Amino acid sequence: METAVKNDAQLLLAQYKKIRKHSESICSPLQTEDYVVQPVADVSPPKWHLGHTTWFFETFVLMPHFKEYKEFNPLYNFVFNSYYETVGARVVRTDRGNLSRPSVLDIYAYRRYVDEQMENFLAEAVLSDKLFGILELGLNHEQQHQELLLTDIKYILGHNPLFPVYSEKEIEANWDVKKDSGFIALPEGIYEIGFNGKGFSFDNESGLHKKYLEAFEIASSLVTNAEYLEFMKDGGYDDFRHWHSEGWDWVKQQQVKSPLYWHFMDGKWQYYKLSGFQDIEWSEAVCHVNFYEASAFASWKAMRLPLEEEWEAASSLFNWGRRWEWTGSAYLPYPRYSKAPGAIGEYNGKFMVNQMVLRGSSIATPEGHSRPSYRNFFHPRHQWQFSGIRLVK
Amino acid sequence: METAVKNDAQLLLAQYKKIRKHSESICSPLQTEDYVVQPVADVSPPKWHLGHTTWFFETFVLMPHFKEYKEFNPLYNFVFNSYYETVGARVVRTDRGNLSRPSVLDIYAYRRYVDEQMENFLAEAVLSDKLFGILELGLNHEQQHQELLLTDIKYILGHNPLFPVYSEKEIEANWDVKKDSGFIALPEGIYEIGFNGKGFSFDNESGLHKKYLEAFEIASSLVTNAEYLEFMKDGGYDDFRHWHSEGWDWVKQQQVKSPLYWHFMDGKWQYYKLSGFQDIEWSEAVCHVNFYEASAFASWKAMRLPLEEEWEAASSLFNWGRRWEWTGSAYLPYPRYSKAPGAIGEYNGKFMVNQMVLRGSSIATPEGHSRPSYRNFFHPRHQWQFSGIRLVK
Amino acid sequence: METAVKNDAQLLLAQYKKIRKHSESICSPLQTEDYVVQPVADVSPPKWHLGHTTWFFETFVLMPHFKEYKEFNPLYNFVFNSYYETVGARVVRTDRGNLSRPSVLDIYAYRRYVDEQMENFLAEAVLSDKLFGILELGLNHEQQHQELLLTDIKYILGHNPLFPVYSEKEIEANWDVKKDSGFIALPEGIYEIGFNGKGFSFDNESGLHKKYLEAFEIASSLVTNAEYLEFMKDGGYDDFRHWHSEGWDWVKQQQVKSPLYWHFMDGKWQYYKLSGFQDIEWSEAVCHVNFYEASAFASWKAMRLPLEEEWEAASSLFNWGRRWEWTGSAYLPYPRYSKAPGAIGEYNGKFMVNQMVLRGSSIATPEGHSRPSYRNFFHPRHQWQFSGIRLVK
Amino acid sequence: METAVKNDAQLLLAQYKKIRKHSESICSPLQTEDYVVQPVADVSPPKWHLGHTTWFFETFVLMPHFKEYKEFNPLYNFVFNSYYETVGARVVRTDRGNLSRPSVLDIYAYRRYVDEQMENFLAEAVLSDKLFGILELGLNHEQQHQELLLTDIKYILGHNPLFPVYSEKEIEANWDVKKDSGFIALPEGIYEIGFNGKGFSFDNESGLHKKYLEAFEIASSLVTNAEYLEFMKDGGYDDFRHWHSEGWDWVKQQQVKSPLYWHFMDGKWQYYKLSGFQDIEWSEAVCHVNFYEASAFASWKAMRLPLEEEWEAASSLFNWGRRWEWTGSAYLPYPRYSKAPGAIGEYNGKFMVNQMVLRGSSIATPEGHSRPSYRNFFHPRHQWQFSGIRLVK
Repeated sequence: METAVKNDAQLLLAQYKKIRKHSESICSPLQTEDYVVQPVADVSPPKWHLGHTTWFFETFVLMPHFKEYKEFNPLYNFVFNSYYETVGARVVRTDRGNLSRPSVLDIYAYRRYVDEQMENFLAEAVLSDKLFGILELGLNHEQQHQELLLTDIKYILGHNPLFPVYSEKEIEANWDVKKDSGFIALPEGIYEIGFNGKGFSFDNESGLHKKYLEAFEIASSLVTNAEYLEFMKDGGYDDFRHWHSEGWDWVKQQQVKSPLYWHFMDGKWQYYKLSGFQDIEWSEAVCHVNFYEASAFASWKAMRLPLEEEWEAASSLFNWGRRWEWTGSAYLPYPRYSKAPGAIGEYNGKFMVNQMVLRGSSIATPEGHSRPSYRNFFHPRHQWQFSGIRLVK
Repeated sequence: METAVKNDAQLLLAQYKKIRKHSESICSPLQTEDYVVQPVADVSPPKWHLGHTTWFFETFVLMPHFKEYKEFNPLYNFVFNSYYETVGARVVRTDRGNLSRPSVLDIYAYRRYVDEQMENFLAEAVLSDKLFGILELGLNHEQQHQELLLTDIKYILGHNPLFPVYSEKEIEANWDVKKDSGFIALPEGIYEIGFNGKGFSFDNESGLHKKYLEAFEIASSLVTNAEYLEFMKDGGYDDFRHWHSEGWDWVKQQQVKSPLYWHFMDGKWQYYKLSGFQDIEWSEAVCHVNFYEASAFASWKAMRLPLEEEWEAASSLFNWGRRWEWTGSAYLPYPRYSKAPGAIGEYNGKFMVNQMVLRGSSIATPEGHSRPSYRNFFHPRHQWQFSGIRLVK
Repeated sequence: METAVKNDAQLLLAQYKKIRKHSESICSPLQTEDYVVQPVADVSPPKWHLGHTTWFFETFVLMPHFKEYKEFNPLYNFVFNSYYETVGARVVRTDRGNLSRPSVLDIYAYRRYVDEQMENFLAEAVLSDKLFGILELGLNHEQQHQELLLTDIKYILGHNPLFPVYSEKEIEANWDVKKDSGFIALPEGIYEIGFNGKGFSFDNESGLHKKYLEAFEIASSLVTNAEYLEFMKDGGYDDFRHWHSEGWDWVKQQQVKSPLYWHFMDGKWQYYKLSGFQDIEWSEAVCHVNFYEASAFASWKAMRLPLEEEWEAASSLFNWGRRWEWTGSAYLPYPRYSKAPGAIGEYNGKFMVNQMVLRGSSIATPEGHSRPSYRNFFHPRHQWQFSGIRLVK
Repeated sequence: METAVKNDAQLLLAQYKKIRKHSESICSPLQTEDYVVQPVADVSPPKWHLGHTTWFFETFVLMPHFKEYKEFNPLYNFVFNSYYETVGARVVRTDRGNLSRPSVLDIYAYRRYVDEQMENFLAEAVLSDKLFGILELGLNHEQQHQELLLTDIKYILGHNPLFPVYSEKEIEANWDVKKDSGFIALPEGIYEIGFNGKGFSFDNESGLHKKYLEAFEIASSLVTNAEYLEFMKDGGYDDFRHWHSEGWDWVKQQQVKSPLYWHFMDGKWQYYKLSGFQDIEWSEAVCHVNFYEASAFASWKAMRLPLEEEWEAASSLFNWGRRWEWTGSAYLPYPRYSKAPGAIGEYNGKFMVNQMVLRGSSIATPEGHSRPSYRNFFHPRHQWQFSGIRLVK
C-alpha cells in the first residue's frame, strides 16, 4: 500500500476502504462452495481469509481501542485466530476446511459490521504512533492475504477434476521474457541492506545493515518456460546430482515431473491458469516451482540462485514483479532484529527457521504492497505461489 | 420402501418421485456451505450423497437401458462413483470434501435432469425382472444414503465450534425406555433366519437358513442414558477388563470419556441433537456408542450383546426402530451367498470382513426401509450412527 | 502338549523341562544378532519370546505361589510383559526391537534361574486345580511362542538382503498334496462343536455347543502352489471382483503379486525356506497367504472357505497339520464363553474382534499342541504364518 | 586428524591404522546386541557405522584404484551405502536396525580384510593429489562416524529401560564453566571467514571470503546447567513467546520439559551419562539441547545465538571443544562453493537446506578432527549430539 501521511486517520480510512474492498473483489467470481474447501493444509478456504483479516482489525484495533465496540461474535476469535498464541485457542489449521459455518454470508456480515465500526472509530480517532502502526500492519496483513486468496483459489480450482475457470479476465497475462537480456555485473563491496525508506515496512526488513558481497553477475531476466522445458527434457527430474537430498526425496515421493499446473494432455504441455487451460507460452517466465526445483535448475545451468542481498543490491537494474524469486538465502533475522511485545510480536520472527527467502513480488501481489527490501518466505517444498527463477553466475 | 407390485413401472415411478424428493427435503434446512465439507473420512459431504444417488440411476439404469439418454456430464462419473471398480476411476473417498465443484446448484440440476429422464424412461418402459431389481436397488440405495445424510449432517454441525441447529423440528424426539421392562426368554432350538417375505431385500439377507440357538433371554428394552452413565461413573472407560484390546487402544488414543455428542458443560452432561444442545434425557435410549462401547457396557453388566440371529428370532417380541442395535455377530455371508455379476455385485459382499452387524433401524431410517431380516454393518470403531445397546443374558 | 495326569506335579515337571528345552533348541541355529531385531511390528525379536515365556512362569506361578522365590530382576516385568494390563506398564510392542538389553546371555540366565526355581517349586508342590491350570496354560503358551519363534525367525532371515539359511535340516520338507483327492460330502444336520476331550484346552474352544450346518463338500486336500500359480497367471491379483474391499486396498498399496517369500528370480519362481532358496515345488500346499488371498482364490474357483464348524466336523476325514487353514469364520466367543478372573482372563477374549479363525496346525506347531477344536486367529492381512487354503463347495 | 605431509603414503597409512583402531576401541565396551538396534531413524546401529566407514574405503579407494582388489561381498554395497545415489541402491535408512546380518563378527572380518588390503595398497601406492584427497576424506569421514558412534551408543543405552553403563571410565567428565567469565567484545568490521590453513578441510568450509560483522559481544563461557534450570523454573518450556513456531510445535507434541537425558527421579534432577546416572552438575555446560531450545533460552535471556562467522571470528578468544555450539546461521554454501564431480560431490552440498550450523567440537569429537572453520550441521530438532549454548549480546 501507499504510505499514509503520518497518523492521518482520514487518509488511512480511505486506504482501509480500498483495501478491504479489493479482498472482496478478488472473491467476487467465486461460487459459495469455492469459499469453503481446503484441499491441502497450506491452502486456506477463501472465506477463512476474509474472516481472519477482519478478525485482525477487531482483535488488535477495535477491541482494545474503541470503547463503544461490541464484539460481533465471541466464537469468531476461536475460528479466525490463525496462530496467535497470545490471543488464545483456535481451530487447528488443518481443520479450516471442515467448517461449514460461519457461512459466507455470515462472514460478509462480519466484514460489514467491522468496517462500519472501523469507520466510526477512525472518524474521531487521534492515532498514537503505536495504533497507527497496528492499523498499517492490519492493512498490509490484508494485502498479504489478498495474494494468498489468489494462490489458494488457483489451487482449489486447479485441483478440481472439472478445472473450473476463475475469470475470463486475464490475470496471468503473458509477459514475455526478453531472451537476449544477459547478465548484469555488480562489483564486490559493502552494500547497505534493509528498509531505508519512509512509511511502512515489516519488522523483518528493517535493521539497515552492511553486507559484504563478492562480485557477481545477475540475470536481467527470469528463466523461461522454454528453458525449464530443456531442463526437463535433459532429465532434470531424474538426475539426483542437481537436487538437495530433501528435494530429491520430494521428487521421488511425489513423482514430480514438472512445475505445478503443467499437464501433458493431447500430446502437448498445457498450463492451468485462472482463466482455464491454455498451451504453455514458452517465452513466459516459468512459474510455480519450489525452492528445490529452482535450485536444481540453477545447478543444471552450473549457476546458482542469488543471495537475497545480491537481489536487493541489484534490484534497480532489472525488471521484477511478475514472479516471487527464490533466493539462496535462508529466512533469518537481520542484525538487531527484535520482536515487538505482545501478540504483534508473533507476526514474523517465529517463522525464522527452515524457510527460504523470496524477493520481488508477483502478479498476485496487490499494487504498492512490495518494495526492494521486502522479504517473503516459504518452505522449500512450496510450489503453489507464483514463484520463478533468476540466476546468478 | 414399500414393495412395488411386481414390475409395475407406474407404481415404481411414484415411489421414485417420493424417495427422490425425500432426499432433498432432508437437505432443505442446510446452508450451501453445509453441503460441502467432510470433517472425517467416514462422513461424506451432503452434496456428494445427492450426486452419488443420482449417478446410480444414471449409470445403472439410464446409460445402459434408455437409448435416448445423453449423459449429463461425463466427468460426474469420476466425481460420484463411490467404489465401483467396474465403473472406473473415481475421486478418492477422503478427497470428497476438497471438491467445491460441482456446486450444489449443479447437483440439483443434475438431479432434475436425471429425474426427468427417469420419468420419460419409466413412462414407456417394460421392465424386465433384472431391470426392475436394479430400480428397486437404486431406491433402497437412496434410502440408505438418506440415513447417512442425516448422520453426516449431524456430524458436520455437531463438530462445528458454533454448533448450529439443523432444525427446530424435533427429529430426535425423546422416547422413553420403560425401565421395568425385563427380559424375554426364548427356548433353544432351530430357528429360520434370513429374508422370507415378498418384495425387496438386499442380497446379504436372503439365503433363508437354519440356525441352532441355545436358550437365551433378551432385554425387552434398550439400555438408557441413565444406565450408561452408571457405567461411566463406575469407571467403565478406565477399566481395561471390559474392553477388547483394539477397543482399549481406541479409548486410550482418543481419550474417550463418553458417547459421541455428550458434552460436560456448566456442571452437567448435555447432548448435541439436530435441534441443538439440551440436557441429557436420562430415560432415553443411549445413542452414538460404537461396538467397543456396547460390548464393554455389556461386559460391565456381566451380560452380552445378542447374536444377529437371536435378535431376528426375538424381534417380534420387543419394540425396535429407534436405534441401530449392535450385535455380537461379525458381518459374514449367509449360506449360499453369492455376488451378482457385474458392478451390482460390488454392493455388499466385498465389505464382509472386519465389520459387525447391527439390526433394527433408527430414527434416521426412512420409513419402510427396514425389516427384521435387515443387516446393517459398520466398523467396530464407528460411533456416528444412531446406534444403541440391547442386552442378552 | 500331551495332557498330564491330573495334578501330577512330577509329570508336569518332565513336560516343563521338555518344552522349555525345545524353545531353546529352536533358537540354537541363531547368531546373537538374529535374536534382537524386529523388522515389523507383528514380528517379535526371538530373545523377547524367550524372555516373555519365562516371565509368564515367574509372574503367574513363582511370584504368587512360591514363597521362597526372589524376583530375578524387577525391570524384567516392564520388558517382558506383552499386553497384560493387570500386570502393569510395559515396553510398547513396536519398541521390542529397540532393546539391546537384556542381552541374549542375560535372558538365558533368566531362563536358567526360573527353570531351577520351577524345579524346586514343583518338587514339593501340591497343585491345586487352579494352579495346575495355570501351569498347563504356561506350557501351552510357551508352545504357541515356539511357533511364533519359527515364523518370526523366518521373517527376520527371509527379509534380510543376505537371505541367510536358518538350518540345512529340512523343516519345511516337501509334502506333496495328492491332486486327485476330491471332495468329501457331509450331510446337513446339527453338529457338536467345541472341545470335548480330557486334558488341556484353551478357554476359547470350550463351551461345547450345537451348530446347524447345511450339507457341504470339503476338499480332502489343500490348494497347491500349482493351483495358486494358475490364479496368479489368470490375473487373480489384478481382478478386484475376487477381493474384499480391504483386501483390494492391501493388494494395491503393497503391490502384492504373490504369496510371501515367493521371488521371481533368474526367470523362475523361487521360494525362500528356512533352508534357503529353492525352486517352488508345485505339488506342495501353498503357504504364507493371508485371509484376503485365501478368500480371493476361493472366489476365483467359484468356491468358498470352510466355516470353522464345517472344518471341525469334517476334520477326521482328511489329513491336516501342515498349514494353518483359513476359515470363513470371524473369531468370536462360543456360547457361554466368559473370561477367567484376573490377568489370565486377558489371554484370549479381548482379541475377539476383527480377526479370522484358522484351524488345524502347521509344520511349525509343536507336536501335540493342536487338536480338532483348536482355534487359531490372525488379522486378515497377516501372511507370515504357515497358512494355506482348503476349499468348500 | 593431523594433516599428513602432502601425499606421504606411509604417514597416511599410520594415520589410517590409528583412526581405524579408534573406531573399534569406541565399540569395545559394547555387547553384541548393542551393535544392532536402531531406536530412532537418526541413530544408526553401531555395527552399521563400522561397516559403512569400511565400505567407504572399499568403494572409493580399493575398487577403483587397486587392481588386485577383490570385493569382499557384493551385497555389502547394498547394506552399507548410506545415501550415495551414484553408487546405487541401498537399504533404506530406517531399516538399518532390522538387519541381523551381516553379524558383528562378519563386519569385523570385513574391516580386517579391507584394512589388510589398504595396507597392501598403500605400501606401494604413489598417491595422486586426487587419490590423496579421497583418502584424507575417508579418514575424516571415519572420524565423523566416531562421534556419531558415541552419540548413538549413548542414545541406545540411554533409552533402554535398564539404563546400562557404557563405561565406568569418565568420558563425559565434569568440566566446570567459570561463572564470572563475562563477554568478549569484537568491533564491527570485515572479517575473513573460511578455511585458511594447510592440510585437510571439508569442501563446505573452504572458500575464504569476507564477511561484514557489526560489533558484538560474545560470552566467554557456555551456558551452565544451573542457568538452564532457571529457564526451566521460569516456565521456559511453557512460554511460546521464546520459541519458533516449529519449535513450539515440537515442545507441545513431544511434551518436552528438559534437555535430553535429564530425568527427575527421587526428588531431584539426574543426568544419564555414558557412565550411568548421576546428579546433575550445575556448573557444567548444559548439553543435549536442540536449536529450538538453544534459541528459546537465548530469547529468554534477551540475547541471541552467535552467527557462525561471529563465532569463527572470536573463537581464538574463548575456550571451546566440550559442546557443539548452536549458531543462528542456516547451513548454506559459502561463496564460490561447488560440488566435486562424482559420488564424492554428494558429501556435503546436498544437505544445505533446513539445517543449522554448529561450531566448535565436543567431548565426543576425535582429537584433531575439528578446527575454527569447521562447520557441523544438524536439523533444528536434534538433541542427541553433545550440543550446548553460547550467547551473544
